[in-house]
Amino acid sequence: MYKHEVKMRVRYAETDQMGYVYYGNYATYFEVARVEALRSLGFRYRNLEEQGILMPVRELNTRFIQPAKYDDLLTIKVSIREMPDVKIIFDYEVYNEEGAKLSTGNTTLVFVNDKTNKLVRCPRPLAILLENYY
Amino acid sequence: MYKHEVKMRVRYAETDQMGYVYYGNYATYFEVARVEALRSLGFRYRNLEEQGILMPVRELNTRFIQPAKYDDLLTIKVSIREMPDVKIIFDYEVYNEEGAKLSTGNTTLVFVNDKTNKLVRCPRPLAILLENYY
Amino acid sequence: MYKHEVKMRVRYAETDQMGYVYYGNYATYFEVARVEALRSLGFRYRNLEEQGILMPVRELNTRFIQPAKYDDLLTIKVSIREMPDVKIIFDYEVYNEEGAKLSTGNTTLVFVNDKTNKLVRCPRPLAILLENYY
Amino acid sequence: MYKHEVKMRVRYAETDQMGYVYYGNYATYFEVARVEALRSLGFRYRNLEEQGILMPVRELNTRFIQPAKYDDLLTIKVSIREMPDVKIIFDYEVYNEEGAKLSTGNTTLVFVNDKTNKLVRCPRPLAILLENYY
Repeated sequence: MYKHEVKMRVRYAETDQMGYVYYGNYATYFEVARVEALRSLGFRYRNLEEQGILMPVRELNTRFIQPAKYDDLLTIKVSIREMPDVKIIFDYEVYNEEGAKLSTGNTTLVFVNDKTNKLVRCPRPLAILLENYY
Repeated sequence: MYKHEVKMRVRYAETDQMGYVYYGNYATYFEVARVEALRSLGFRYRNLEEQGILMPVRELNTRFIQPAKYDDLLTIKVSIREMPDVKIIFDYEVYNEEGAKLSTGNTTLVFVNDKTNKLVRCPRPLAILLENYY
Repeated sequence: MYKHEVKMRVRYAETDQMGYVYYGNYATYFEVARVEALRSLGFRYRNLEEQGILMPVRELNTRFIQPAKYDDLLTIKVSIREMPDVKIIFDYEVYNEEGAKLSTGNTTLVFVNDKTNKLVRCPRPLAILLENYY
Repeated sequence: MYKHEVKMRVRYAETDQMGYVYYGNYATYFEVARVEALRSLGFRYRNLEEQGILMPVRELNTRFIQPAKYDDLLTIKVSIREMPDVKIIFDYEVYNEEGAKLSTGNTTLVFVNDKTNKLVRCPRPLAILLENYY
């Protein structure tokens, strides 16, 4: 299974008046985590879009265990659950510096040809990079 | 079951370069929908916080069926699944002006005393307003 | 001079841990205000983009006098300073329900042809609608 | 004069349907830049808040020269214009990887006692760290 870890620091903009990271901002953290996971594999999502393949999100699930707070340096553990085919599923775990698990989540994305707007299979260049892990 | 409908227009800030509403922004739409649902019931969430009860989100699940687009006037149908006890579950359906269902989701929130940081039951004033619907 | 007023309610997502609206979110409030000002004039910004004219922002200035707070129902007074030519300048004033002036600002936008990426003059349909006010 | 450089990568969430970074998001970039500038000086803004001093923004000015785009690795040059007294002014310049200047801006912040809500002078610990630069 392909796994990767990303660190990111909570911005003031991301907090709310409860003093916590607003729950909607985890979707952005997950985005950064999966893009960096692909980059560390040697794959740049921006290039994929430039070649006419989009990866819209079909499903987002998040459980919030403890709040992340301003200026926390978070570690996000991201993994790709199985070899992608027409969809790709990422799992996430968010930890703070003390090692407490703050939240978990997953996102399901699909591959879409931006001309035809039709679903396509996982592009070959990405599939090749992932094959060794499954 | 208590149900309510809220309309809101997609802001430019909420779109991404795919030309869709960024997937993380649905959490904000859901927030607006549930706050307005409670307001229409005669209950103002802001007052609850002023009285020392917070309602953090414990779980968020969203399915994205079709993209919402810039300047779309969305209708969000929100309902409270069952009589709340220590938690309250909201279900959401998002429609565009043509009546297409764009996404569905749900959030589970809990009631927390902001002094003790402990879970509490659904506050009496809210429970009284909801009782007739269940 | 063309003037318009827009009301909008502060979302929880827009607050920060200071308990105020995060300063960057005023840019979004200003966006909503100018788009609604144009709509009330009979002009839909979305149509302009569909016809290949973009309106990127070239300058943003904001002064923050008093904080806006969660659930405040804000009134934004927006005006177009002068008859637009290659640029269009919007002025904004933000008030809360008690009539306190919370902030002021202005944005300068230009008109750009999305094919050539060149500046163009204010499109005729918009100029015609505005002419009576100057 | 105290100067610092911060790098940050544009997130998908920060783009809009024009394919550019939404203009309101520069306020967040500036926030990260000034917080990191203070951290590199040995000063953590989070600690200041914990000691009861807030730094609300009083003024924000931004000029947008060229758009930042998705996945761009930006360099933000931040400087503190003069020795702070009751206010502190940060200047910013944003560059992309090709060295093109994308935008410039400045923010004026004040120091506020969160109990009395009154303006206070720049806290001694921060003033001491900055003195050598002016």
